[in-house]
Amino acid sequence: MTAAVYRGNRSFVIEQRAAKPPEPGEVAVGVAYCGICGTDMHVFHGNMDVRVGHNRVIGHEMSGTVTALGEGVSQVAVGQKVSVRPLDSCGDCPACDASHRHICHNLRFLGLDTDGAMQQIWNVPAHVLHILPDGLRMEHAALVEPVAVACHDVRRAALQAGEDVLVIGGGPIGILCAMVARASGGRVLLSEVNPHRVEIARKLGFDVINPSEEDLSATVATRTEGKGADIVFEVSGTQAGVDDMTACAAVRARIVMVAIHAQKPKIDLFQFFWRELELLGARVYEEEDYEQAIAILADGDIDVDAVITEIRPLSAIQTAFEDLDTSPTALKSLIKVGEQQCA
Amino acid sequence: MTAAVYRGNRSFVIEQRAAKPPEPGEVAVGVAYCGICGTDMHVFHGNMDVRVGHNRVIGHEMSGTVTALGEGVSQVAVGQKVSVRPLDSCGDCPACDASHRHICHNLRFLGLDTDGAMQQIWNVPAHVLHILPDGLRMEHAALVEPVAVACHDVRRAALQAGEDVLVIGGGPIGILCAMVARASGGRVLLSEVNPHRVEIARKLGFDVINPSEEDLSATVATRTEGKGADIVFEVSGTQAGVDDMTACAAVRARIVMVAIHAQKPKIDLFQFFWRELELLGARVYEEEDYEQAIAILADGDIDVDAVITEIRPLSAIQTAFEDLDTSPTALKSLIKVGEQQCA
Repeated sequence: MTAAVYRGNRSFVIEQRAAKPPEPGEVAVGVAYCGICGTDMHVFHGNMDVRVGHNRVIGHEMSGTVTALGEGVSQVAVGQKVSVRPLDSCGDCPACDASHRHICHNLRFLGLDTDGAMQQIWNVPAHVLHILPDGLRMEHAALVEPVAVACHDVRRAALQAGEDVLVIGGGPIGILCAMVARASGGRVLLSEVNPHRVEIARKLGFDVINPSEEDLSATVATRTEGKGADIVFEVSGTQAGVDDMTACAAVRARIVMVAIHAQKPKIDLFQFFWRELELLGARVYEEEDYEQAIAILADGDIDVDAVITEIRPLSAIQTAFEDLDTSPTALKSLIKVGEQQCA
Repeated sequence: MTAAVYRGNRSFVIEQRAAKPPEPGEVAVGVAYCGICGTDMHVFHGNMDVRVGHNRVIGHEMSGTVTALGEGVSQVAVGQKVSVRPLDSCGDCPACDASHRHICHNLRFLGLDTDGAMQQIWNVPAHVLHILPDGLRMEHAALVEPVAVACHDVRRAALQAGEDVLVIGGGPIGILCAMVARASGGRVLLSEVNPHRVEIARKLGFDVINPSEEDLSATVATRTEGKGADIVFEVSGTQAGVDDMTACAAVRARIVMVAIHAQKPKIDLFQFFWRELELLGARVYEEEDYEQAIAILADGDIDVDAVITEIRPLSAIQTAFEDLDTSPTALKSLIKVGEQQCA
């Protein structure tokens, strides 16, 4: 079977490897599609070499079909279509004890800390599988993982229908947050500085403000009759986004921290006090977020075809990463992993 | 009647004024005791001159007795002992519409935006009164307001008995937060850098760490078997406190922002994402916090006598402020306002 191996220095090598039979408790999955995540791009840039090394098959946003069962596995059957929730928790830390296994102190993320889905046969622990409904297209099912991120973010915000929602940042996760928030009844405004992404978001029917051209907080205030946004998703990872998140928030607003801030930004804590704001960190997803994401995708509640801007074969993974890295208009690139299986 | 008037430039003037009869909807309260709040000290320092002016009777942490009723007031009777919840909301803004009247967009704070309790007869709207139980001593009842702050903070944290609580900052509000958290079943650790305050807090039976002498996050980790604090109250208003609040927090910890940060500190937002932390702003109190504070004080659940480190007559307000400003050991100074009434 074919595998794409990250070798460091912005390079992948395509290798032929013998598929290993699944270990006890594992399932072999024939990967259909695998999306390129922002985290994968960080790997490509060399920022995560210490963690992943130079001999790693990455990839975790996937759809596939069960091809073999390891000893003791009974919850899935060969031939079933599945998506992997790529979290392997230790079961023995304070977070696991408190039933927050998705943020386990010793979490292993499949496709980073172990080999991932950019290979035709992926052996994974059976407990990470979610069974897909028959009607769900496999390229759409590759979006289950990022849609589950958005479902988790929206669930953390406890969004009520009719609430005013501000999404700061219109990349793939920002767009998916906006889509899930809209599907949940939120009145969504999106803030994005990249004119190409502004255009994409507008084509998706979103009300978009470019804060480099318009005063975002004044616009939010006007549109909400002085109230401000009930919910803010900070997905930009920038100081400007962090400034806007407090400036645009209503009294008792919930601000969901979706972005990964590698630097420590300055925050207007006075506004947290003054308006009793809430900041809620949100990381990955839990089982129910995966089930909700599968249901949303199966029901066609969000237009994921507009999010998938590219599909390339596994053999073209190198150019797929390079192009995604430089394209101003790309959102989600998928790798069609399964095609080579038949080639 | 005697009133202490703030005249700017760290000065109070004692004046004799004619007591006005209460307007319709108002109640005249004979003030017994009035505490000096940190906010009052900000006024004294001249930091709030724009807001309060140079002809203002300040003071809002008080106990007293109803002496006269304005037209249309029926909910209290002359002779009843009361405390004032010094918040006057507009009833017509998005915060009031959402039932968050205590953080009204146009909130008037009695004793800052209007004349306050450092006078022998204080006329206030009837709706701000809370009736005190007979057994509650009037000097203890002057603590209802700051204890209500602590009750609000603890309620925002949704503290469950047995949870690990870290209070960062051992001033009057930090100590009261620690007391209410302990009375609510929390396992409280207090962090304080001032050796005098460390000593006071230890005398009150608290487990206290001086983070300038010990590694706070390592200590918290050791004491919680690697979990971290379930609840953190940031009451220090410092960058070091903000650093500690994320460093010491457990997965899914609730961090309550009690302090007023005039500057924008740098915050480790990555930890919010990574450990799904929550930051909850907390400002003043709601009706139920006042009722809880009155019940706690009436039941003797917290040792407020240890918090009241000084009681001075209204005639000595100038030296009371000066001494509180420089004393390393003072916590709460009360002004006995009513004494002059009989003099």
